[in-house]
Parts: sequence; C-alpha cells; structure tokens
Amino acid sequence: MKITEYIAALRENINEAREQGKTVVLIPTMGFLHYGHLAMAEDARKQDEDHEKIYIIMSIFINPLQFGPNEDLDKYPRNLVRDSRLAHEAGVDMLFVPSVEEMYPYGESLTTVNVSKITDILCGAYRTGHFQGVATVVSKLFNIVLPDAAYFGQKDYQQFIVIQQMVKDLNIPVKLIAYPTVRESDGLAMSSRNSYLSPEQRKQAPVLYRSLLDGASMIASGENRPEVVRERIIQRISTESEGKIEYVEVRKANDLSLVQRVNCTVVIALAVHFGSTRLIDNIIVEAQKDVEKHDEIKDS
Amino acid sequence: MKITEYIAALRENINEAREQGKTVVLIPTMGFLHYGHLAMAEDARKQDEDHEKIYIIMSIFINPLQFGPNEDLDKYPRNLVRDSRLAHEAGVDMLFVPSVEEMYPYGESLTTVNVSKITDILCGAYRTGHFQGVATVVSKLFNIVLPDAAYFGQKDYQQFIVIQQMVKDLNIPVKLIAYPTVRESDGLAMSSRNSYLSPEQRKQAPVLYRSLLDGASMIASGENRPEVVRERIIQRISTESEGKIEYVEVRKANDLSLVQRVNCTVVIALAVHFGSTRLIDNIIVEAQKDVEKHDEIKDS
Repeated sequence: MKITEYIAALRENINEAREQGKTVVLIPTMGFLHYGHLAMAEDARKQDEDHEKIYIIMSIFINPLQFGPNEDLDKYPRNLVRDSRLAHEAGVDMLFVPSVEEMYPYGESLTTVNVSKITDILCGAYRTGHFQGVATVVSKLFNIVLPDAAYFGQKDYQQFIVIQQMVKDLNIPVKLIAYPTVRESDGLAMSSRNSYLSPEQRKQAPVLYRSLLDGASMIASGENRPEVVRERIIQRISTESEGKIEYVEVRKANDLSLVQRVNCTVVIALAVHFGSTRLIDNIIVEAQKDVEKHDEIKDS
Repeated sequence: MKITEYIAALRENINEAREQGKTVVLIPTMGFLHYGHLAMAEDARKQDEDHEKIYIIMSIFINPLQFGPNEDLDKYPRNLVRDSRLAHEAGVDMLFVPSVEEMYPYGESLTTVNVSKITDILCGAYRTGHFQGVATVVSKLFNIVLPDAAYFGQKDYQQFIVIQQMVKDLNIPVKLIAYPTVRESDGLAMSSRNSYLSPEQRKQAPVLYRSLLDGASMIASGENRPEVVRERIIQRISTESEGKIEYVEVRKANDLSLVQRVNCTVVIALAVHFGSTRLIDNIIVEAQKDVEKHDEIKDS
C-alpha cells in the first residue's frame, strides 16, 4: 500500500492505475478506522484479490468545513499509524492523507457546493453548514480522484442521500455504493465517536439500535402511523438510557420526504446525545404492502 | 461534425475520442454564434487541422438558472441551423445542444455551486443568482465532458474569474483559457445581445470601447487614481451616447479586489444599458511601474 498527503502524487498514481486498465474505487473517511470503514475496502477487494483490476483509494481527512464552531473538530480521534496498518490489511492500494493546507491551500474556500431542502432536516437542522462542508469536500475528492465508484456508509444515511442528489444534479460520473452499517455484537453502530463514550454510556448506547428494531418490527406488523412508531422509540430510549434525544423521525427512504402513512420504504433515523457525544443511527424498513394488510384484516 | 442533444451520446463520443488519444476541448456557449465564439474553435483547431489530436466540443445551452426573473431568457436569440453550419466551418467536432429537460431532468436543481465574494460585485451586484447559475451549469458541463481544456471569452471577464476560482477551489482537472474579446471593426465587443440594438443604439454602442481605451491610455500615461479614470469613462459615455451606466469600475485583474492606487494589472469593467439591452465590456491594463513613474517625475 502506498500513502501520500499530496494531490499531485495521488493523481500520478491514479493515472498509472488507469493506464493499467484498473477501475478506481474511492472510500472517503475521517480516519480512526473501524470495521465499518474496513468492510468497505474488503468488499471492493474481494472482487479482485490480486490487485489486478481494482485500485482502491481510501482518503483520511478530517474536514474542518463540515464541523460547526461548537463541535468536536479538535478532539476528533486520530491514529494514522494504526489506520495505515488496518487499511493495508483490508486491501487498500493507496491511502490519501492530505493536510488541511493541501485541501484548502487558500485558507477559506470561496466555492461551496450546496444541496438545498434535504439538508435542512434531520442532522442538517442541528448541524448548520455540515452538509455544505460534506458536499464541498466530497466534490473536491471526486474531482481529485475521478473515481469510477465510491463507497459511503449507510450509518450516515442522510449524507448518502445528499451526495446521491449532488451526483445526480451535477452529472458527476461516479457510481455510489451505500454500504450497510456495521455493528458491534450488541448492536451499536460502529463509529469513531464511540471512543468518546464512558463505560456507562457505552453500556446504554445499544438501546438506539434496539429501539430502531422495535420500530421496524411495528411497521412489519402493520403499524403505519409514523407518530406511533416515533413515540415508541422515544419512549424506549428515554426509559432505558440517559441519552438526550435530538430527533427521531420516520421519512421516505429515497428522498427523505415526510410520510403521512408508512406505505413505502422508509428510513427511521435518530440522533441522540450521550453526555457530549452525539450518536446517530438508522434503519431502512419496507412498508407492509396494502394488499397484505387487507388480507390480515380479512383473516382476523 | 456530429450534433447531439443527449448527454449519454455525447459521453460515448468523447470516450471514443479519448480512446484514440485525443485531447478534449470544451467551448461552452449560449448559441447565436458570432466570431467571438468561432475564434475560440478556430484557435483550438489550428493546432490540429486534421482532427487527429484534438476533439472540440461546443455546447449551446441557454441556461435558465443564470437568468433573473426580469431578464431576457425568453427573447434570447436562437438560430440552431446557422449555428451548426458556423460551428462546423470553424472546426468543431461535436455540437452539444441539450434541452432544458436533458440538463435539469428533475425540474429544479437542488444542488448549486456557489462562489462567494467575487460574485457580489460588478455584474453580480445587479444580476442576483446569475453567477450561481453559471457556476452550477459549468460544473455540470465539466462533469459531463471532463475536458482537458475549456475556452471562455474575456468579454465576460468576471465570469472567467469566477470559474477560475471554482476550478481552483474544487480541484477540477481542467485547463482554462481566457480568449481575447473579438470586436466589430468599430470596436464594439461581439455579443449575441448586440442583435437587440436599434440602428441608433448600434451606432452609439462603440463608445464603450472607446472610453475603455481612454481609461487605459490615462493609466499608461501614469494616472494612478481609479476614481479619475472612472469619472472620465462615465463622462464620455454619458456625453456621447444615451447609454445608462450600471457600473464602471477599476479593479485588480487577478482577483477583482478594489484598488486604492493603480499599481498592478487592473481590469476596467463596465455595464451599460442601451434601452432594454444590457452590454458589458472590459479592458486589462498593466499599471505603470513605480520605478518608471519616478523616472518621469525626475525627467519633468
């Protein structure tokens, strides 16, 4: 595995890979790698274990633009030595670890990429400017790497939808892959931010996933009122933990629009604070088909 | 010359050209071609008259996103039959003439590209949203074509600076070429909008360039007070025509910042309305070097 902090060196290596006819895959991360990141590299690698057809680039960049003034930019965990070893073992070909100066050589970026509407809700309602920072840095990474495909974790579901919208709207020639959330054995979604949790918080945090499963199972049993699903999740988290709920919402999975009735594939998404640590999670649920529900009613 | 309105067909042709090792050049226009446009195609073509090394794409797209509600979107002149003939004669390989639906298939674009600060001044101060529309559609064209180089006319000087900023900030891998303004024999900058002018307005309009030359010659003679240059130009336009001045400004050429004293390369830029027709023009002027000025003072 190669490693570079320079855009020019990265591009040179990518051009070489392309001349060898390789497909270029990008996995953007903020580092402090966990298996949620590594599973994406392994997924790309398993299609080409001999490094002959697929060139996997993982970027590690803690993007200041996507952090608010009161957020955890400064304390965001870093461990490049460990990250390099793990990325190498997962089959990454090139680790791109630019400095802030390499990515923003002119200080502030006068140019930003903005996705409207779907960035005003969920996390976007609480993290002003976050998705502008994400869209801008992902645009930059796409322009630097020109990847054929790029992986994003499903844990950041809204981020994926925002990037998908940007790619469609701006005609960016990349195939996006949403990779399923990887979880600890007790269900907690893997996240670099889990490292902030105290032992007690860590013990309580799996309630997030348990309550999402609850919600999913209510919908699977025919509950189609989003408010009822939402209330159950809020109640369970409040009862079983000291987590402070930021939001719990049931929205249409494909465009994050609100649903009056759950009659399509939805995402149940939540953000909860444990002390100063903000955790997010989500689950995708297919609605019961109307026809099945009618059958159930007939049967009962 | 080929012609298509479809992104997919365009990309297919570009891929073919690239496989033949050709360099891809993009010339974005809004059509109703004049020699200002064609000179750019000829410039690219003259380096490869046999169509063996350079693949020239000219786009014709009147981008609704860059027109304000009270602007001339609906009456903007169109003549695709004539444009095709002229583009072909100028050596264009592929004319891309997408419909609004092809460029914005989802109606509005949730995603926009925004360049701050340098879009609040000059034309940007009077055409709200204009440069957002420009930056967004040029981003799209760059992502569709992935050109090695792209031409823009120097007549739209602020547009060039905005696109240059966007390209730098977003790491877009394209070489930008600012092509010198092509003028009618009486000095009027070529523009599709000149076709709106009445015979009397057309007779008066060359005062814009004459007054810019005036300003340039004042600076060449050692005048370094931007206000004095500006006043002379305003006075001449007001005296010699019925043009209503929107702005006349002297700014630093490389980043459009204000200058207290003309001691660097500046752009004198102006926008003037003749009836309902808005014309713009500009001239780049190198300041007299301080050392020369000292000499002059010593000599006199």
